[in-house]
Order: sequence, then C-alpha cells, then structure tokens
Amino acid sequence: MESPQSASLSVEELYEAWPVLSIDERLEGFRLLPPAVADDFFISLSARDQAELILHLPPAERRPWVRVLPPDDLADLVQAVEPEQAESILSQLDDASRREVNILLAYAEDDAGGLMNPRFARVRPDMTIDEAIGYLRKQAREKVETVYYAYALDAGQHLLGVLSLRQLFQAAPDKKVADVMQRDVITVGEQTDQEAVGRLFSEHAFMALPVVDEQGRMKGIVTVDDIVDVVQEEATEDIQKVGGMEALEAPYFEVGFFGMLKKRIGWLLVLFLGQMLTATAMSSFEDEIASAVVLSLFVPLIISSGGNSGSQTSTLIIRALALGEMRLKDWWRVARREALSGLVLGIVLGLVGLLRIVIWHGISGSYGEHFFLLGVAVALSVLGVVTFGTLAGSMLPLVLRRFGFDPASASAPFVATLVDVSGVVIYFTVASLILRGTLL
Amino acid sequence: MESPQSASLSVEELYEAWPVLSIDERLEGFRLLPPAVADDFFISLSARDQAELILHLPPAERRPWVRVLPPDDLADLVQAVEPEQAESILSQLDDASRREVNILLAYAEDDAGGLMNPRFARVRPDMTIDEAIGYLRKQAREKVETVYYAYALDAGQHLLGVLSLRQLFQAAPDKKVADVMQRDVITVGEQTDQEAVGRLFSEHAFMALPVVDEQGRMKGIVTVDDIVDVVQEEATEDIQKVGGMEALEAPYFEVGFFGMLKKRIGWLLVLFLGQMLTATAMSSFEDEIASAVVLSLFVPLIISSGGNSGSQTSTLIIRALALGEMRLKDWWRVARREALSGLVLGIVLGLVGLLRIVIWHGISGSYGEHFFLLGVAVALSVLGVVTFGTLAGSMLPLVLRRFGFDPASASAPFVATLVDVSGVVIYFTVASLILRGTLL
Repeated sequence: MESPQSASLSVEELYEAWPVLSIDERLEGFRLLPPAVADDFFISLSARDQAELILHLPPAERRPWVRVLPPDDLADLVQAVEPEQAESILSQLDDASRREVNILLAYAEDDAGGLMNPRFARVRPDMTIDEAIGYLRKQAREKVETVYYAYALDAGQHLLGVLSLRQLFQAAPDKKVADVMQRDVITVGEQTDQEAVGRLFSEHAFMALPVVDEQGRMKGIVTVDDIVDVVQEEATEDIQKVGGMEALEAPYFEVGFFGMLKKRIGWLLVLFLGQMLTATAMSSFEDEIASAVVLSLFVPLIISSGGNSGSQTSTLIIRALALGEMRLKDWWRVARREALSGLVLGIVLGLVGLLRIVIWHGISGSYGEHFFLLGVAVALSVLGVVTFGTLAGSMLPLVLRRFGFDPASASAPFVATLVDVSGVVIYFTVASLILRGTLL
Repeated sequence: MESPQSASLSVEELYEAWPVLSIDERLEGFRLLPPAVADDFFISLSARDQAELILHLPPAERRPWVRVLPPDDLADLVQAVEPEQAESILSQLDDASRREVNILLAYAEDDAGGLMNPRFARVRPDMTIDEAIGYLRKQAREKVETVYYAYALDAGQHLLGVLSLRQLFQAAPDKKVADVMQRDVITVGEQTDQEAVGRLFSEHAFMALPVVDEQGRMKGIVTVDDIVDVVQEEATEDIQKVGGMEALEAPYFEVGFFGMLKKRIGWLLVLFLGQMLTATAMSSFEDEIASAVVLSLFVPLIISSGGNSGSQTSTLIIRALALGEMRLKDWWRVARREALSGLVLGIVLGLVGLLRIVIWHGISGSYGEHFFLLGVAVALSVLGVVTFGTLAGSMLPLVLRRFGFDPASASAPFVATLVDVSGVVIYFTVASLILRGTLL
C-alpha cells in the first residue's frame, strides 16, 4: 500500500528547509522520509543535528539510528551532548563499537585523531590486484564505508603504501599490490590540529589522508567530507572573532538570548573600558579644545580613519595566517610592506581631508582665518594615524600568535579601539605643533 | 642507480613549505619529486599554482602536465591565466578533451556547472551487479577518475538512480542495478551558485553530487575535494569584506603592492567621506561644546561603543546568512531579538560609563559640580547609541541582500562609520535635553 501523497516529502525539500526548521518540524519531516533514504539522510547530518533528533525520539526508537553511524561520527555525537545523555547513547552500541568510540574520545576534538575514522580499507602488499579487490569487497560488506583508497599495512600495522581504487581497477589483475602502490604517502599525525588538516585538504585535492602514530602505525583515516565541515566551522569562528565577539557553538537561532548576550558582552565591555582612555587622553588637551573648539569637530573623523585602516589590515593578516599564506618569521616583510601601504593610504586620505576643509571653508567660511593651517594639521594627523593604524593592525595578529593566542582575537573593533586612543594623542600633538601661536 | 640523498625531497616536505615558496623554489622542489609522485602532487595543486608551474616550464615540457589534468581542473586552470596563455595551453590537448573543456568554460566559474567534472562513472539500470563492477573497472582504466558513486542513466542520459561503491560491493553479484540503486537522488542544477553547493556539502556528508540540466539529464559531478576549496575561498572573501576591503584573488604575498592598495583604498575613501559627516554634525553643536568643553571628551567613547556593537552584530548576521542559518523573511524575528539585545547591552555599558564618571570625579574632581547629570547624559547616550548600532548592524546585511548586494559589504568599518554619525547626533541631543539650565 502506498502512502498518501500528502505524507510524502522529497529528501531534497527536506535538505533545503533543514537549517530553518524547529526541532519538532525536523522530526516530523524526518519521519516522512522513505526508510531507504532516511538512513543516508541521518548519516549526512551534523553531529549536533543528529544528537538533537536522537534525543527527541522516544528511547525505544533510538537504537537503529545510533547503530547506523560510523565510530568517528558517534564520537562527535557523544561530544555534542551532555555527559548523562552520552552514557545512554553509548549503551545502545555493541561492545566492539563502544570500544572504538571510547578510543576516539580520548583524542582532543580538534585533533586529526578526533576527526578520524578507525575503519579503513586495508590490503597486504603481497596480495595480487584481484585478491585485493576481492578482499575490499569483503570489507565493504562488513563495516568499512570508505573505499576510495586501500592502505597496504605490514603485520605490525605500519603503513607501507597506498592505492587508489582507480589504480586498483586500472592495474593488471595478476600484479602484486606492492608493485602498484604508491610508497611516498602523505600522512598526518594523531595530534595534528584540525585547522592544519583542513588547510592540507583545501590546498590539495585529497579524498582522504591516513592518520599514523609516531611509530608509523596506521590509526585511521580522515575523509574530505568531514573536512568541509571543519573548514566552514573554523572560518565561522574567525569571522565571529573578527567581528568582536566570542565564537558561537551553534547556529544563530539555536543560541539562546542570554547565551548570545554572554558571547557579546565580554568584548564590548573590554572595548568600552579601553575606549575610556580616549576621554582621559582628550581631557589632557582640554585647554586646547577650550581655546579652539573647532579642533574637536575633527576628532571622530581622524580617529576613525585610523580605526578603519587598522581593522582592514588586521583582518587581512588574520586570514592570511589562517590559510598558511604567511608565517611568523615573515613579520619583517609584512611590517615593511604594511608601513609603506599605510603611508600611501594616509597621504591619499590626508589630501582628501585637506581638500574638504578648504572647500567647505570656501562655501561656509566656518573654520576661521586659520582654516588652511587647520587643514594641514588634520591632513598630517590622518597621515600619522592611518600609518600607525595600518602598522598596528598588521603586527597585532602576529604578536598574538607569537604568544600562543588566536590571531583572530585582533578583531576589527579591538584594533579600532587601540588605534582610537593613539589617534587622539597624535591629533592633538600635531595640532599643538602646527597651530601654536595662531589658533592656539 | 639511486639518486643521491641531497637531491631527494619528500613530498610531505614540499606540501608543508609550498604556500611560502617563491615560484623558482616551487619549480625546483617540483622537479626533485620522484616521477611517480609528481603526477599526484601536480593534480592536487590549486588551479593558480598549476598555471604558475606550467607557465614557468619550458614550452616543450608542458604537454604531459596539461594532459594529466581532468577537464574540470583544466577549465579552472584556463580561467586562471591570461587569454593568450589559455590558447597555448588548450593547444596541448587532444580534440576530445579540448571540446570537453570548452563546454565547461561556457559555464560561469561560480556555478555548479563551472565546478563539475563531465567524466563520471555510469551504469545501466538493467546490468547485474557483477556486470556493473566490470564496466566500472573498464571506465576507470579509460578516463573516469572518481568512482565512489556509479550513476544509473537511461538511453537519453536521464538520471534514474545512484549506487555507492560500497553498495555495489555489498550487493549480491547477480542482482540488478535497478534493484539496489537509490532512486531519490539529491542533485544540483547547472546554474546553482557555488556557495549554495558548498553549503549543501558542509551541512551533509556527501562525497559527490550529480549536476543535471532542467530536463533531468546528467551533465557531470561535483566532488567534495573541489568543494573544500570553494568553502575556503568564499569564507576568505567574506572575511576580507567584513574587514572593509575588496576580496583578494590571490594569497597575501602574491598580490602586488599597488594591486593590494587598489583593493583597500576604495572602501577607506568611502568611509572617510562618510565619516566627514561627523564633523558636519558636530559643528552644529559647536555652541554646546564651547560652553561645556567637557562634553567633547566623551564623543569618541560614545560613538565607538555604538560602532563596536554594530560591527559585532553585522558580522554575526553576515555569517548566519552565508551559512543559510537565517533567511530574509526572518527579518522581523532578527530585528526584535537584536533590538532587545541592544537594549540590554546598552544598559550594561551605560551603567559602567556612569560609574566611571562618578568614580573618576570622586578621585580627581575634574568634571565640575554637575558631574552626576553629565554621567546620566553619557549613560543614556550610550544606551541609545548601542541600541541603534545593534539594530542597524543587524538590518543592514538583510537590506543589502534584499536589494541583491552581498551582505558581507556591511563590513565592520562601514557599520561603525554609519553609527558614528548618528552617535554624535544622539549624544548632543540627549546632553542638550538633560544639561539645559545646568551645564549648558
């Protein structure tokens, strides 16, 4: 008997709508999928979404969904839930699988070890190609889900070589694996950071990389489909930090109102306290402002031009570091280049500022008889502030990395605040020097 | 005869150092690789790096490297070089491959069609499993390099179903493909934007997705290894835009000094011109500043607290939009939530500001007899500016998307500048109301 039309749902429609559905709608949609498709759909979800679905199912219905997942996905899922829920999920597994998951849980979530799948396709170097293909078919029937590469191991589990499925298919059936396999294998260590693993995958088109321990024994594989997620997550973290907040662990609408506030208030408070220094800096120039109120009009313009150029530069450097496009030891090359950029940008913006004051004075006459000197003071301040902002914005991410912090913490608002305070000092110092005896 | 130790180079070492090598060092390293490894290494490079290597090889040495690449990689490579160089690269191909590449070049680079590989593994639905495996081996020997899925097509090339290699290996050898294949296939259209394709891959663990035209005819596959790159690139573009510059097309050190300046000066100029409005706004409050210079001290603090909260919010929304976590029609939900967040953040920061003025006055007595009213004016202005900044920062990316622009253009510096101007007006208006008759 076929199910009525109204109850059927295409898996494509469900994929499309998924990100914006509530958990109840997700569960409803998931239950409408034909059973043959539901498995694949469930496996392809993120660990957080899998956890959410499982925990909303009645306990009696959970077992088949837990068992359909490979060990690396199970480890991710267990890490996405509360400890007591993890216990109840792990209890659905058979002993062998539970042991595999527990081994993976010993790795840090952000390491290659935490990403890897311990079930990979293996062959022995002395097998013939035909024997190897037969052996792979057997492994696929059992529990190995990723078979685009076969890894040749010795009896001690040391990785000797690798064969792509394509190479296996292309080779003459009676050749030996050892004659065809590639011996110079790119591997990653168990403790390699996931950001570095992601970089390796994004720079080079691998489908999977083997994870080995210090003795060269193979522990598992990291597959590229898990890496897309890692790359997306790391980028999201960086973007959120660049915007001046702590990274969120869940999509926008899934973070509670107060959880979100907590992620945001910290940096805003730090920046607010830092920005108070501008008031302190300005108060030491109160006499100058009192005798020439016109000076105060340009404070926001000048400090923000430094802030903007600094934010721009720090963001550029943060991303270049994250992509491995530059290293710490390149700092001098970066500093030279950015100082020069800052000078050129500062000259252009400074001249525009001078022009604006001269033209505006021509129209409205509002800047008094010393308008040209005032314009020069503003232009030179912009030059100084933009150069300083650009240089500071380029060095701060490098300094943070040097001392083991995340370069992305050199957020746009953080650099802007830092440069604002210096901007006030630069402006009033330049103005004092140039306008002493005329306006001041 | 073995090559001397000094001349050998492990492929792992070369991968590690690659991003920071000059082109001459890259060429030298590449030539030191054993021939068996060099092929794979070359295929795994980015299109830009492949183009650079090929163009630095003597013309006589180019042909084998051009021919080793699949059509989709060739199309990318051709798009990465100047038109006259493209001509010379395409001339190295045989006619059939050149035709394939030219078809791919007709797609926009950012579409699924521009990412896809037209060589995929196909089977007929009426084949037995054993016949299908034999047929796949034959295709792998010819030119199909990606064989983790086999696609079942009818005579008119319409996509009927899909089988993973694992399903093929698991099934009984005498079953029919049509009995085993999955019929509800997730596909992407030829014109689907690469960002949407990337999102599909990052939310769900696919190894490849089929590309079909409007009639359901299969055109090629997009594989996940190409998607890691897309996701990384799209994130880089967004981060650079959020930082207030145009997106770069190449790594930091590969962009020339003046090319880099061109990407940066545009936004800085727009922001500088916009920021000039702060001077105009402040000049209409010149009398207030003249009679109470102390007011001017808090201008940077107040406007930047709005700028910081605005940058933070716009970055959050930009990323949520890019990840498909929210849609345009959610705008009202976002506006309500962000207005409330802004209020709470503004109250906290405002109270801290009031406290700071009261305490500082207690220590130094520098804010005169009306220090408390001054503190209240500052606190209320911070509240107003932060609420406005948060709301503006949340709505601007949505407005940009609504009118077909990239939400990421609502960069941190752009939002900060927008909010700065409004901040000046809010501050002096609030101060005039509260301090009229006392300080003013």
